[in-house]
Amino acid sequence: MAGTAGPEIERLIQLLAKLPGLGPRSARRAALHLMKKREALMEPLAAAMAEAAEKIRPCSICGNLDVSDPCTVCRDPKRGDSVICVVETVGDLWALERAGAFAGKYHVLGGVLSALDGVGPDDLNLASLIERAGNGSVSEVILALNATVDGQTTAHVIADRLAHTGVSVTSLARGVPVGGELDYLDDGTLAAAFRSRRPT
Amino acid sequence: MAGTAGPEIERLIQLLAKLPGLGPRSARRAALHLMKKREALMEPLAAAMAEAAEKIRPCSICGNLDVSDPCTVCRDPKRGDSVICVVETVGDLWALERAGAFAGKYHVLGGVLSALDGVGPDDLNLASLIERAGNGSVSEVILALNATVDGQTTAHVIADRLAHTGVSVTSLARGVPVGGELDYLDDGTLAAAFRSRRPT
Repeated sequence: MAGTAGPEIERLIQLLAKLPGLGPRSARRAALHLMKKREALMEPLAAAMAEAAEKIRPCSICGNLDVSDPCTVCRDPKRGDSVICVVETVGDLWALERAGAFAGKYHVLGGVLSALDGVGPDDLNLASLIERAGNGSVSEVILALNATVDGQTTAHVIADRLAHTGVSVTSLARGVPVGGELDYLDDGTLAAAFRSRRPT
Repeated sequence: MAGTAGPEIERLIQLLAKLPGLGPRSARRAALHLMKKREALMEPLAAAMAEAAEKIRPCSICGNLDVSDPCTVCRDPKRGDSVICVVETVGDLWALERAGAFAGKYHVLGGVLSALDGVGPDDLNLASLIERAGNGSVSEVILALNATVDGQTTAHVIADRLAHTGVSVTSLARGVPVGGELDYLDDGTLAAAFRSRRPT
């Protein structure tokens, strides 16, 4: 509630409050800031949002979100076709790209299997992954899923379905994060780091 | 940096990061959320923002932001004309309206006098306030400015300039906030609450 402002401002605040990280109070603050910087921020942001809403589509190959289909990653000739990295969300893809850790192609599942949330194999981009992995040019599928129970369940199901294709299926290493202090790590991570110890 | 996303997404993230309360990381999260809820959130928000940017203007009487000029408050026939409440920002006006504490008209200064930030009397809606207060129908001006040094300096300057008009100039009471614990209050507030004590 902005009080006596017109319905247009009310509606703007209500919509802003739906963004992750903004509540009713910070949405009001954001709306005031936008109205103060009308030409410098509000108009460009409205235009950028309208353009993105119009142009952005999921990539028909990998499920990444981009303004072109196939997406920038799938069209990049410098990236190899033989390794596919499977991620849960576009946000995870962005994180891996920021880290510069991978130069192959991706496959965005769009979530993980979850009995609790009623997410089954048909709700994910799973069939298209099996198809891509079996097309003959793929030698390895890296499962970069979150180290959560649902993430690991999903990894097992994918590994199972890929078994017949003969491609090698790998997962990200578990261990001590860079900069991590042993004292603050959970038992599972410590145990995994011990099991996977390697010569220095 | 969203990694491999197109320039449209990059730009959306950069603009979102300029909102108060959002940093680069939460702006990425907000952009992903918007792209996921394209029809339910991104398109309506873009439209609401464009509409607000086009329609919202400062009220020529009081400085409030609204889609109509004079604003909803100034046009309201149920609100008295004899008392003007002076606030620093539109956000303060909204806060007082939410509290339902005041049924007169407002005057938004657009800031406070500040030697440090180089804000002088000409940078505020001060001249129009003196004019409004002196038009004969106003009997009281309530200074609802923040209890900061700059806020109080500004209050003194306004009181000074209104002295010749003969309208009574008042300020919000200082005291213990509702729900406040004495142990956590600063000395200035406690001293002010003692000075302004009243029969129960």
